[in-house]
Amino acid sequence: MEQSSQQPVWAVIFISRLSEGAEGYREMAQEMMERVSRFPGFMGAESVREGELGITISYWRDRESIQRWADDPRHREAQKRGKEQWYQSYTLQVVRIEQVKNFRRK
Amino acid sequence: MEQSSQQPVWAVIFISRLSEGAEGYREMAQEMMERVSRFPGFMGAESVREGELGITISYWRDRESIQRWADDPRHREAQKRGKEQWYQSYTLQVVRIEQVKNFRRK
Repeated sequence: MEQSSQQPVWAVIFISRLSEGAEGYREMAQEMMERVSRFPGFMGAESVREGELGITISYWRDRESIQRWADDPRHREAQKRGKEQWYQSYTLQVVRIEQVKNFRRK
Repeated sequence: MEQSSQQPVWAVIFISRLSEGAEGYREMAQEMMERVSRFPGFMGAESVREGELGITISYWRDRESIQRWADDPRHREAQKRGKEQWYQSYTLQVVRIEQVKNFRRK
């Protein structure tokens, strides 16, 4: 995750299964990652994909920023195309971070 | 995620970076997944790995079950070996699920 002096309190877990093909998905996913990285309240993300199954965790300063990102016009277009073309299914969970443990090999 | 009649309220986000080699990791990861699947309070998990970076989300009935799993003796051994041998770094976040949106293609 990108480092920040503040600790994020909110996160969004996004677990998705892509449809076969999913043409144009990769380009839009990259565009959205660039767009969100400049979005107020965004504090970093981790994303992993293994075949059709992907998990993205994004971190947020507050819940209001999550809602504003959900309502962002270009993000709305991506969501619409996602439902129409790209995703077989997804689960999105807005969560509050209650406890954190970090480990780094010395 | 494994389905359940109840909705989970708690989850654990585990983001890990493996060291090179990480001998024996895969076997232990599989053993832990089998072990946790029978653990009281466990409600399912999703796990994705892309090279060295892995994200696992596990879902739980309550926070007490998460703590009991953290203290499980065999799981403790796995954690110890993880820090000594397998992980370059990890972040573990205990979170409370505040909002859920599901989508499934019709």
